[in-house]
Amino acid sequence: MPEVRQNLVTKEWVIIATERAKRPEEFSRKSEPRKLPPHDPSCPFCPGNESMTPKEVLKYEGESGWLVRIVPNKFPALVPNGQPRRLRDGIYLRMDGVGKHEVIIETPQHNETIATLSRQHVELVVQAYYERFCELSKEPYCSLIIIFRNQGERAGTSLVHPHSQLIGMPFIPLHIRRYMYELERHYDALGRCAVCDILEYELKEGVRVFWSNEHFLCLVPYAASFPYEVWVIPLRHQASFSELRGDELSALADALKVALLKLHIGLNQPDYNFVLHSAPHFSAGEPFYHWYVRIVPRLTTPAGFELGSGISINVSLPEENATHLRNVELPGEGV
Amino acid sequence: MPEVRQNLVTKEWVIIATERAKRPEEFSRKSEPRKLPPHDPSCPFCPGNESMTPKEVLKYEGESGWLVRIVPNKFPALVPNGQPRRLRDGIYLRMDGVGKHEVIIETPQHNETIATLSRQHVELVVQAYYERFCELSKEPYCSLIIIFRNQGERAGTSLVHPHSQLIGMPFIPLHIRRYMYELERHYDALGRCAVCDILEYELKEGVRVFWSNEHFLCLVPYAASFPYEVWVIPLRHQASFSELRGDELSALADALKVALLKLHIGLNQPDYNFVLHSAPHFSAGEPFYHWYVRIVPRLTTPAGFELGSGISINVSLPEENATHLRNVELPGEGV
Repeated sequence: MPEVRQNLVTKEWVIIATERAKRPEEFSRKSEPRKLPPHDPSCPFCPGNESMTPKEVLKYEGESGWLVRIVPNKFPALVPNGQPRRLRDGIYLRMDGVGKHEVIIETPQHNETIATLSRQHVELVVQAYYERFCELSKEPYCSLIIIFRNQGERAGTSLVHPHSQLIGMPFIPLHIRRYMYELERHYDALGRCAVCDILEYELKEGVRVFWSNEHFLCLVPYAASFPYEVWVIPLRHQASFSELRGDELSALADALKVALLKLHIGLNQPDYNFVLHSAPHFSAGEPFYHWYVRIVPRLTTPAGFELGSGISINVSLPEENATHLRNVELPGEGV
Repeated sequence: MPEVRQNLVTKEWVIIATERAKRPEEFSRKSEPRKLPPHDPSCPFCPGNESMTPKEVLKYEGESGWLVRIVPNKFPALVPNGQPRRLRDGIYLRMDGVGKHEVIIETPQHNETIATLSRQHVELVVQAYYERFCELSKEPYCSLIIIFRNQGERAGTSLVHPHSQLIGMPFIPLHIRRYMYELERHYDALGRCAVCDILEYELKEGVRVFWSNEHFLCLVPYAASFPYEVWVIPLRHQASFSELRGDELSALADALKVALLKLHIGLNQPDYNFVLHSAPHFSAGEPFYHWYVRIVPRLTTPAGFELGSGISINVSLPEENATHLRNVELPGEGV
């Protein structure tokens, strides 16, 4: 019998369609992904082509050149000029598309991905996220900063060179306001952050947690909207990514790498998106908000029902996903 | 400069990314879609294979066999037994997956689609939607009925034989409640239904309307979330699809066929989803809710930003989409 589960964070329902449930191997990529060279002379993100991007706003360098670069997006969704004033447009409202849109080029290597980079290098990437996040939090039109990553064609990427993106915006989408409102209500009712509640409960239950270290937990959420959805959650309560401490930063790099590597191995290099869900900067320190990274492998296609209802049909069991990921053995380094 | 527009119905923002804006021809399907035979002996929806589906709950017949069939979905997301009581599951809430999930087999012809069916046949399909919608509205676990269609692989379909689906559910997703709440607030503030406001304004402006008849308007909305998003809206205020009158039914069939045919020709057979957004049955007659059909061609891939922010980046201009669709000439019948 299908089951409907409530996401404790958003309070939205998700249909877990057991009649359509697929086995782990059915989600695995069937054909081998395209082999890429370590360097592509036509790639704007490869070393030697730095002039093809706008000038970097952050750069980490090693002995033989740069290791991580952050550059303004050449085709930005939002631009850093104008005013985010609401303007009347007949019966509608509009505003200028003000904000920041940057690209984090994660490595000079054209054919790498976070799952396969060394743990030291992933730490550099996370360090770059953190530095830039803190820096942009000071800007007046970056109330909300979203760091995200699109891996592969099904996840909407256009450039294969490993990169993440950052968008800073001066307005809070209604979607985010409502998310915050539900978290606040949870806090008001129970005196606890919903995510802290989840951490405590899931650590005790164990069935949906598949990895943890001193500072982070990797789990498949109870009401996962998608097969193999993964949350990487800091154990210590913190509303904004800017509240991350130095010793937590390398633990985050490890957790992110492990989660992505387990998906990489366990599902044979799936396409995925991830998003760092942090509180807007004016909500740093809030007792009800708790940031985390949400990873969504693109294994199924949301269709008309999802569009119409706003809820998901998940054709897999979160507990089964977690078991599968827990059992994926990591090679070599094995963080 | 990018622009941010507010959807007057949901009150959510949409980024219209003009720096990334594509020309109409860039959205057009490049390779010809797979040619299908008019009959596929292995297709469970083709004539002769009726025993491969559960027994029909509605059937229209012509001289040489059935014309439209509605059957229970063999792999339902929700099932018609159990109770939608909320149950505790540790710190979470869950309920049984109770509801109805049916398939509307639109035609015996394996290789047709609504855009290419005769207008008389599309009217039969719409008649079947209407009859089944009204019938199921009486069921206690069908508070909300969603009729939707997934055309093509990018739109999440698994069976190519032309069909739509209907899901009746006993709970209202938070997403829908919030949508209704915004419409109610609009009504409270202005004494008008938001969709009636849009109809009046868009008829006057003309730039986003691309077709209309006596009872329906086809337009690209001001804050379209996706390139070539289309709304087919009844001119007379009505909250629930069940309030549709007989003379409006054939006008809806015409409008739906025209909208889909213009997309079919103008974008070379794009994959798409459509959803009939009707009020829950207990809100039939409400002055603030106005049903409509939303068509979303699957031309771009929502990615990490959309996942994280809940808002869309549309890489096209609604006014330009409307102009393109208005100029698509219809062959033969030309409703």
